[in-house]
Amino acid sequence: MPILSGIKTDVNELEELRLITAHGGYIGLAQVNLSPGNLELNAQKIASYIRYAESIKLDMVVFPELALMGYPINDTIERHPFLVEENIKWLKVLAEITGNTAALVGFVEPRGQYDEGKRFYNSVAILRNGEIEGIVRKSLLPNYSEFNDYRYMEPSPVVGVQPSDTLCMFSRDNMVETDGIYTLNGIKYGISICEDLWNNKDFFDKNLYDKDPISELKKAGAEVIINCSASPTRVRKEQLKHNLLAFTAFSHKLPIIYVNQVGAIDNISFDGASRGVNKYGDLFACAKSFEEDFIIVNPMKSEGEIEPITNGLEKSLNEQKVFTLEYESDLERTYKTILQGIRDYFSKCGLKRAVLGLSGGLDSSVCAVLLADALGKENVFGISMPSKLTSAESKSDARELADNLGINFTEISIKPVVDTTTECLDNLFNDVGKKWNDRYANSFTPDNIQARSRAMYLWGISNEFPSCIPIATSDKSELYMGYATINGDMSGGYAPIADVPKTKLFAFARWLNLNRETKNAIPKSVILKKPGAELAIDPKTGKTLNAEDALMPYEFLDEIIWRIENKNESYKDLLNVEFIYETKCPISRQQKVEWLDKFYSRMSKALYKWSILPPSVIVESRSINKADYNQPITSCRINYKGHSVARIRQILLCKEL
Amino acid sequence: MPILSGIKTDVNELEELRLITAHGGYIGLAQVNLSPGNLELNAQKIASYIRYAESIKLDMVVFPELALMGYPINDTIERHPFLVEENIKWLKVLAEITGNTAALVGFVEPRGQYDEGKRFYNSVAILRNGEIEGIVRKSLLPNYSEFNDYRYMEPSPVVGVQPSDTLCMFSRDNMVETDGIYTLNGIKYGISICEDLWNNKDFFDKNLYDKDPISELKKAGAEVIINCSASPTRVRKEQLKHNLLAFTAFSHKLPIIYVNQVGAIDNISFDGASRGVNKYGDLFACAKSFEEDFIIVNPMKSEGEIEPITNGLEKSLNEQKVFTLEYESDLERTYKTILQGIRDYFSKCGLKRAVLGLSGGLDSSVCAVLLADALGKENVFGISMPSKLTSAESKSDARELADNLGINFTEISIKPVVDTTTECLDNLFNDVGKKWNDRYANSFTPDNIQARSRAMYLWGISNEFPSCIPIATSDKSELYMGYATINGDMSGGYAPIADVPKTKLFAFARWLNLNRETKNAIPKSVILKKPGAELAIDPKTGKTLNAEDALMPYEFLDEIIWRIENKNESYKDLLNVEFIYETKCPISRQQKVEWLDKFYSRMSKALYKWSILPPSVIVESRSINKADYNQPITSCRINYKGHSVARIRQILLCKEL
Repeated sequence: MPILSGIKTDVNELEELRLITAHGGYIGLAQVNLSPGNLELNAQKIASYIRYAESIKLDMVVFPELALMGYPINDTIERHPFLVEENIKWLKVLAEITGNTAALVGFVEPRGQYDEGKRFYNSVAILRNGEIEGIVRKSLLPNYSEFNDYRYMEPSPVVGVQPSDTLCMFSRDNMVETDGIYTLNGIKYGISICEDLWNNKDFFDKNLYDKDPISELKKAGAEVIINCSASPTRVRKEQLKHNLLAFTAFSHKLPIIYVNQVGAIDNISFDGASRGVNKYGDLFACAKSFEEDFIIVNPMKSEGEIEPITNGLEKSLNEQKVFTLEYESDLERTYKTILQGIRDYFSKCGLKRAVLGLSGGLDSSVCAVLLADALGKENVFGISMPSKLTSAESKSDARELADNLGINFTEISIKPVVDTTTECLDNLFNDVGKKWNDRYANSFTPDNIQARSRAMYLWGISNEFPSCIPIATSDKSELYMGYATINGDMSGGYAPIADVPKTKLFAFARWLNLNRETKNAIPKSVILKKPGAELAIDPKTGKTLNAEDALMPYEFLDEIIWRIENKNESYKDLLNVEFIYETKCPISRQQKVEWLDKFYSRMSKALYKWSILPPSVIVESRSINKADYNQPITSCRINYKGHSVARIRQILLCKEL
Repeated sequence: MPILSGIKTDVNELEELRLITAHGGYIGLAQVNLSPGNLELNAQKIASYIRYAESIKLDMVVFPELALMGYPINDTIERHPFLVEENIKWLKVLAEITGNTAALVGFVEPRGQYDEGKRFYNSVAILRNGEIEGIVRKSLLPNYSEFNDYRYMEPSPVVGVQPSDTLCMFSRDNMVETDGIYTLNGIKYGISICEDLWNNKDFFDKNLYDKDPISELKKAGAEVIINCSASPTRVRKEQLKHNLLAFTAFSHKLPIIYVNQVGAIDNISFDGASRGVNKYGDLFACAKSFEEDFIIVNPMKSEGEIEPITNGLEKSLNEQKVFTLEYESDLERTYKTILQGIRDYFSKCGLKRAVLGLSGGLDSSVCAVLLADALGKENVFGISMPSKLTSAESKSDARELADNLGINFTEISIKPVVDTTTECLDNLFNDVGKKWNDRYANSFTPDNIQARSRAMYLWGISNEFPSCIPIATSDKSELYMGYATINGDMSGGYAPIADVPKTKLFAFARWLNLNRETKNAIPKSVILKKPGAELAIDPKTGKTLNAEDALMPYEFLDEIIWRIENKNESYKDLLNVEFIYETKCPISRQQKVEWLDKFYSRMSKALYKWSILPPSVIVESRSINKADYNQPITSCRINYKGHSVARIRQILLCKEL
């Protein structure tokens, strides 16, 4: 039976809803988009949904993890602890507006008096009838990839609900021996927070934690599991999530109500898709992906609506983790992840407009499409900035793309700035060369002057026009290779495709041309031409250098990245495994060694560039985004090939002090 | 009784040493400088010291935490786990070179078969007579500020030594019931790793962890505590460390041997100063600060040498934490911390030279001195890059400074680039303004063009001459205010003073003038003039705008920063507390509110700039360095003033959906 979802204002629809909810057991899943630390905004949103839930007489309305504060808030609460005090004030007033409908609201809870451990709990309050009825605290605190809970939060020593008088003063000493179950209108709820659900010992081969809160809640008599979450999207993570939810629900014979945050906070994009799974492990309700949504479910009756799930958020596979380089199925998710990333970064920072260089190449073209869709075409300015190396085709491709998208466009030569700068630098280099007489015979200086002149234009526009930032168009493959100019193309206020590898970008461009309202916005020639920055002439051909000649075939490069990130393969593994690339295009071992050596050497030198990368949304299962991955820059001399024990003996046993 | 320390090669000195060590109980503290992941380099260093210790018949030689891998290695070992396998190979060969002298070597230990928890242990192996005699694993895993142990490491369930056959296959199941004590030549050693020492419940008001490994080792019969550490330097941390060591040794009546890493890894500088504290809590031996060193001690006899401790690493205060804005005592430590930071970043990355703009101002002058001292004057190039706003005094100050330091110097006008760029941008802005008709009446574009033109020159030199990077000269006060140009003065390969507030820089410049071999290298006028970027004209005065007029008095600004970072004061706290600044220079409440508002508003907008800050050494007790502090950029709309409950009620209780 379908239940009306979304926010209704029509009197008849509301009445229809009330007739249904009057039977009891109906829960609202408030999938909200939050701003970190913006208590006023978040609380107003929460209050609106509480009022709505109340008006349609739901038993309960559930918000995501840390709904009041926004997730993640990271070190902010350590340095500015007043923010935590403030969130308690807002929580208490939110309680005042509740009536018969219980509201589950996530918040940061200070621990009050305590002898050991961290300063805060990651908590959910049950608000009802003007009061706080109970507090649930997160037991399992993730501390990997983008998760940093354990930096500030203390794990709860107990699962389920504790009395409201423990608010801000909970300790092992005042822990009440209860079953931890929250009973409402005769139904027994086991309430958990995000990671609490992710430690099923029968499902995972290895678990990060000792205890399984869901099993404990089941044992305590829970009839329904509620999970307040903030779970970011990653390639294929949705499959894992679906399988875990289905498995857990089925094996415990317990329906699960899962409420996820939606929206992006800095580099992290949350996909929403809040849902209900019944005790047979079947999905019976699902909210929209990548949009704020409110759905109503009845877990005891498996009632609810199922929104179509975004492609790439499949729910049909059985494997725990699937390794594949198949991009096609993930392109819609990729699109929505980045779009949400751009939109939320801009709106939460009070930005409105973007300016970017249009080279006629793939990276800037895809960025332009994404920006037009995220910000509105009137808020995007594409600038074609040709140099003497820019081909006529590149210029016309840039213009055609802008026309197709309807974004603002202009063309301006960088020649005057490049010429003047080059002349000044020639004098300067002569001066410097008198002291440092080992000047490179062939340097990248001319290439970089071009890229930096363009960035100078873009940042100029950003300084001159309100609420506008320039866009860094670097892609993941090139960032791995350090094939990006500092203060040039890798500089910007935001980097939309920094976590998308080049081969995926080709598939993505085709997908965009087929699936957007305006078809074929990206000129075919952009997709067909070989990538190259048009910054230098290849001495061998006399034409502009193409990127694959400077680096290696993108298909091979992206497969290395994928194998390292997803399978943690080593240099030796890579050398010995047969690449998908090799099955299509056999190469000599010598060639493979050469490319692998180049990869590791360039990657080691790129670590610094990763450290100054602009904010950019995480898209893939693993990334080089600072919010996700941190490798010391000074580890640039790791020997990725390793040594045999015999060689190590030779090195260590022969050396004297 | 003094014992010869450092590495001796003289035959007589060696013989003298052997006469002493023949009595037994002598331990070498090998305070080494390590490169993250560079196993070959680290292992060779370790092997050298093992051989030396063996040659002078020490009972034991102790290395810092994770000596083989280098600390921190961060996410590298998760993505490239082969590196952990490699470190085991090196460890086993290191065992082969040991004889009668036990060597305690830190390494990353994979857990082998395990059902739950993280992948690795942070371990120390006891190598002796060609074999691994036992393994100690870290129990307490820090996860705050620059520490990320708990991201990868599993806490050991047991303190002290476990048998060698548990190597790479230790679990709760094969845990041997021992006292955990390592007995060597009749002396019982309790071996611990860094944080294991930092949870003394009698010393600290609050503790982060449940258990105290040192107490457990004492109970198990330890006669000496060994602690392998990697403990970064911070303002006043040394006082805390000294007090903790003294207190712990005295209260347990146990001597403590503390071996610290020295050297910098990326943003983190380790001060060394390894030491022995006797059972009365007295320091009886101490290695050099900020230098690789090897000292010999006998903890049972309280024998050893005491190197003078660097100023700022005092050891006399009794308070746990001291809050003060007094810079004077900390300037030598600051100097050595930054010098080591620069030197190690350059050497570990294979860099040699630095180029920086010399404006004649305080920031660039201090940077130039530090670079000259860290890299050698021949490896530093100072470039004076005047614009039409640059005063004659600024130009001559820059030249005088370079002369005093003996660094390379040249002068080049930025006028041609600024003029050409300005002209091009004027055309571009007209074009863009046709679509976006809300161009700022007064923008910072002209200021930024100047700063970016300079960066263009510096990066050009870095591209043209080998092993050279440009230096970002931004200081901490200005970074807090976002008073730094993206792709301009805040851009560079390294930022030496990014964690030094402006008022401290004034004191520091004076200190440098007094304490370096060449006195008064920094011209007096540089220190006396009011800071200002000479990028714009103040319409009020007709002279170049000075920074304090654009911002607020630096003394006030730095006190806000210090109060927030050290005392976690809120807007309200700051408003109500009397600033040290106010005692000297009373201000109206209105003025204070204006400055505080400006501070929070500018800081909120600066978060993006913090995220793209170049590598820079952490100097102060707290910082905005990415390695230490992470606040979401999208948290820029936090209301730092907070609201009264009455106002919150007004906001939430009146709003309808």
